[in-house]
Amino acid sequence: MSFTVTILGSASARPTPNRHPSGQLVNIHEQYYLVDAGEGVQQQLIKYGINPLKIREVFISHLHGDHLYGLFPLISTLGLYGRRTPLKVYAPAPFGEMLAAHLRYFDTQLPYEVVWVEVDTTKHRLLLENRSIEVWSIPLRHRVPCAGYLFREKEPALNIEKYKIEKYGLSIAQITAAKRGEDVVLADGEVIPNAELTYRPYAPRSYAYLSDTNYSAKAATLCRGVDLLYHEATYAAAEQRSARDRGHSTTLDAAKAALKAEARRLLIGHYSSRYKQLEPLIEEARTLFPETYATVEGETFTIEKQR
Amino acid sequence: MSFTVTILGSASARPTPNRHPSGQLVNIHEQYYLVDAGEGVQQQLIKYGINPLKIREVFISHLHGDHLYGLFPLISTLGLYGRRTPLKVYAPAPFGEMLAAHLRYFDTQLPYEVVWVEVDTTKHRLLLENRSIEVWSIPLRHRVPCAGYLFREKEPALNIEKYKIEKYGLSIAQITAAKRGEDVVLADGEVIPNAELTYRPYAPRSYAYLSDTNYSAKAATLCRGVDLLYHEATYAAAEQRSARDRGHSTTLDAAKAALKAEARRLLIGHYSSRYKQLEPLIEEARTLFPETYATVEGETFTIEKQR
Repeated sequence: MSFTVTILGSASARPTPNRHPSGQLVNIHEQYYLVDAGEGVQQQLIKYGINPLKIREVFISHLHGDHLYGLFPLISTLGLYGRRTPLKVYAPAPFGEMLAAHLRYFDTQLPYEVVWVEVDTTKHRLLLENRSIEVWSIPLRHRVPCAGYLFREKEPALNIEKYKIEKYGLSIAQITAAKRGEDVVLADGEVIPNAELTYRPYAPRSYAYLSDTNYSAKAATLCRGVDLLYHEATYAAAEQRSARDRGHSTTLDAAKAALKAEARRLLIGHYSSRYKQLEPLIEEARTLFPETYATVEGETFTIEKQR
Repeated sequence: MSFTVTILGSASARPTPNRHPSGQLVNIHEQYYLVDAGEGVQQQLIKYGINPLKIREVFISHLHGDHLYGLFPLISTLGLYGRRTPLKVYAPAPFGEMLAAHLRYFDTQLPYEVVWVEVDTTKHRLLLENRSIEVWSIPLRHRVPCAGYLFREKEPALNIEKYKIEKYGLSIAQITAAKRGEDVVLADGEVIPNAELTYRPYAPRSYAYLSDTNYSAKAATLCRGVDLLYHEATYAAAEQRSARDRGHSTTLDAAKAALKAEARRLLIGHYSSRYKQLEPLIEEARTLFPETYATVEGETFTIEKQR
């Protein structure tokens, strides 16, 4: 039951020789979600051994090119690979128009459907729900409509303590009832409370992707208790004014958000091309939030299960 | 007076971990021309130490994504870099519509103008002429309208043999006349033929870019005498049928074109992702045309001056 985040791009709008624009792959229970799709994202997937056909759905935070230019080439390549499954793309308007233009000029014969799901970036909404996860939108504060995404694992099914089965001589039907959360009535009429028989194997895990944005207490609060928080940190703290004016964050803004969210760990990225070394950025964020880590392309962050 | 070709991309439509889609940089007398612009071309430029602002004009062979997807992100980045000089893009129709869509959705405030020059891919036409070069279109045979581009250096100015200046005691005016190609009349009435005084410092050099195409004797003939010929070779010779059906060439098609063109050297590229090793492709082409070389990203091919 994996829950990992692989970094495909860590740059901001101006790429550098070694940093690509935004892109991440979230793997929850072997369901793969692409989050943002900067130029070159398909090649980054291949480079890190991920078959692009595995992508189930795509989440785009906003319609700036450094978060989107790689999606259209990827859409074409999935066609060459013979994808047949429809591909849902969650993105703000007017993504549908952009997609229509792309299909008209580049992919008139695409063998699968690309389905746009409009994201209202002003609302905290449940966008996707399946047996394993929920994905929620998080309103952000950027120069254009922009949403973060919160991936939450669902409560895992109850497990039953093996020795209790023997102790009470439980039948298959009783075990099934207990796993559904019911109390169990034994043959002699004794009622065994569900809590005595079962346990949650682990706490539901969560990941939040907040990019691009000014510091937002509201966004952080919506991610409260998140295991892993990605927050953009385009600038060092000294560039607070540039950050604010351009709808971006500093290292300390990101750390403040992690504190506010009571996150376990913080990832920063979307580094301005002016920063050749990441260490000073990390050090700066750690002054406020020690559990800060740098997004580095090709690295995978695992969210471990905790009981 | 440089004349070089730097390889930015060597892959066909499906990129591999180490090969990018089509892109080349032609440098003639420190004028930089981008030829095709597959995804990631801006990052390839940066990676190989070329400032994207240096690009004067862009030549797009056809409107398939693997030759074009990188142009739009590059256009955006040039805006971030503060380009003010208009950028001419030579490309077949309907590139103008694609450009308009791009500008509408991504670059509403671009600080420079992108000017589309329509290329009629059925005609051999002079597209660009300046003091240093001419660029001609070469009709190709692909699944969609597609043009090759022939870059020809202009005849270099005549040089004058230094010792003739002394021998005949030539004045500045007489030297200038000789350099213009005129005969010189000495004070005593003697006429010195221009050919005795001057020489061409080197033969005009040329580069032809032929991609994507079936073998075309006509295209090869239009490049007759070219110093360096790039010809796509998507497939090995064994895949002749796939090549023909898909509007592409094999290694031997490329070699045949080089023979027909009486080229000095041949570059092949646009390799199908199925070929992990290039050596067998090169060996195959060399059976027909020994002076064949592989395009490898980051490599620069220099066309040396020859008298």
